[in-house]
Amino acid sequence: MGVDVGGTKVAAALVDSTGQIRARSRSNMAAGGTASEGLDAVASIIRKLISDSALARNVRAIGICAPGPLDPEAGIVINPPNVPCWRNYPLVAEVERIFQMPVKLDNDANAAALAEATWGAGRLYRSVFYVGIGTGIGTGIVFDGRILHGASGAAGEGGHMGIDLRGPRCNCGKRGCIEVFASGPAIAVRARQKLQADPNSMLLELSEGKVDAVTTELVAQAAGNGDRLALTVIDEVVEMLAYWLGNIVDLIEPDVVIIGGGVAPMLAPYLDGIHTRWEGACINPRAQVIPIILSSYGDDAGVIGAAALCSTANSSATQISKEPL
Amino acid sequence: MGVDVGGTKVAAALVDSTGQIRARSRSNMAAGGTASEGLDAVASIIRKLISDSALARNVRAIGICAPGPLDPEAGIVINPPNVPCWRNYPLVAEVERIFQMPVKLDNDANAAALAEATWGAGRLYRSVFYVGIGTGIGTGIVFDGRILHGASGAAGEGGHMGIDLRGPRCNCGKRGCIEVFASGPAIAVRARQKLQADPNSMLLELSEGKVDAVTTELVAQAAGNGDRLALTVIDEVVEMLAYWLGNIVDLIEPDVVIIGGGVAPMLAPYLDGIHTRWEGACINPRAQVIPIILSSYGDDAGVIGAAALCSTANSSATQISKEPL
Repeated sequence: MGVDVGGTKVAAALVDSTGQIRARSRSNMAAGGTASEGLDAVASIIRKLISDSALARNVRAIGICAPGPLDPEAGIVINPPNVPCWRNYPLVAEVERIFQMPVKLDNDANAAALAEATWGAGRLYRSVFYVGIGTGIGTGIVFDGRILHGASGAAGEGGHMGIDLRGPRCNCGKRGCIEVFASGPAIAVRARQKLQADPNSMLLELSEGKVDAVTTELVAQAAGNGDRLALTVIDEVVEMLAYWLGNIVDLIEPDVVIIGGGVAPMLAPYLDGIHTRWEGACINPRAQVIPIILSSYGDDAGVIGAAALCSTANSSATQISKEPL
Repeated sequence: MGVDVGGTKVAAALVDSTGQIRARSRSNMAAGGTASEGLDAVASIIRKLISDSALARNVRAIGICAPGPLDPEAGIVINPPNVPCWRNYPLVAEVERIFQMPVKLDNDANAAALAEATWGAGRLYRSVFYVGIGTGIGTGIVFDGRILHGASGAAGEGGHMGIDLRGPRCNCGKRGCIEVFASGPAIAVRARQKLQADPNSMLLELSEGKVDAVTTELVAQAAGNGDRLALTVIDEVVEMLAYWLGNIVDLIEPDVVIIGGGVAPMLAPYLDGIHTRWEGACINPRAQVIPIILSSYGDDAGVIGAAALCSTANSSATQISKEPL
């Protein structure tokens, strides 16, 4: 079973050994209440799925993904801004106590990366770099079927790698993080700023004349219709993503780059532009043949990724090849 | 045996199982001649060390490090600018043919990283990020005793990760690589530029009035004596190194950062400044306790690193722990 805990919703699904969802449920998350109210919300949806589905008798483990920061090894939620009910909360121990089966915990992007590497767009590759672009930018690295957690479980924060040390300040405190430039909200803000100077863009029509109503979706729609301003915005975003991904490829050279998150489908027509931009922004001699592909799972990345945590916890997928990466 | 091939010299050493050099030799490298002249230079020094040292009968393997790009798995030197004699040259096969024993090949920075991780400053840590700062900036990553090679052996090029997408062009073609800002020559150039505006610096005295004669060594010397201009140069370099290393820590969270190369001793008094700078340039909650330490091997990093390639090829160091990183 995979459980995806968010700031407003909690979703659960029964996922089979091929990564297919066999049953699912969804409810509100009590993220702003007490720690035990938060736990109750999670436990309730697990109970509901178990009681609703005959397949539930086959559940052997529960995987949970939640917003970070968290400690995957200790099973502790540290202090996610969107889930304030839990502060240094031993979520794994609590859920294990209730359901008497192994429970795994990881952050959203790591879980999504593992889902892609195990069953999804990355299943044919040994090393996967996953990027989720939505309200923020989350990333996860999977080498040989294992999430790269780093010394204390805090690795994989590629969304907060900076590309401009004098750039605008990110919410995280750093300057010039890729998240500041290329998240969904950042794309919308970039378009709104350009609209001030170029009010003839189709974007203004699409947003019914309201600059503040311009969204990433409208930018993508206008770009699809050939709007110059919208295409410029996307070109700038692709340039920055290419510089940032070029850095990552030069450091870890993954076999594949997978783009997910809510903004990914809108960027899909422009992802080939990253390869073009890499000609001056990536020294890797094989960069042009490293695939940059869309994720397989869309909104289900969380629950499937959470379930994938159990898969690797309980199968031969933990075995490490001895060949060099 | 470890062999370090450079653009002008080739060095070889017998290294014992604790990483100590037991015998060594050094000669000129015929890097500008034909491929077989280059091979002869390498074979000659290996033969010399074997004939000079009684210990040589214990040699079981030969490790070679050379400037990249090269393919460590295939044992092929691709096209290093400083060693033009070899283009797509099967160095490993050639040396194996001559000496009839296993031969390993890797680039300088990867070999140095492995030496540190196996026997040196990183021996107590599971994951090591090594930075060599000299005429360029080379890096190597070692996880659990293995070099991270990436999909085709081209990973670990951290020196060409950019921190300013509009920054000055690097020799590699990218803009704003850390190498452009913080290599030895870049530090000297930065000081020379500042001297134009501030000719009262002690640096001008140290360089006997010649701006062009300012070197990184003189900058370090002036900074050690409290010279304001030199201290400003070093502060700027440390700021940029901190931003760059902060990105790397946020992505892979190593257990330790090791600084080597010719410029490292000069930066040593200022490395603590990286931790201070990380307060706004690294979101890792443990960043302040990740050690940033000097390498153990100085000029011997190459030969010891080359020997370390054999060590991991032939010992239990290839065994991978199954615990998550």
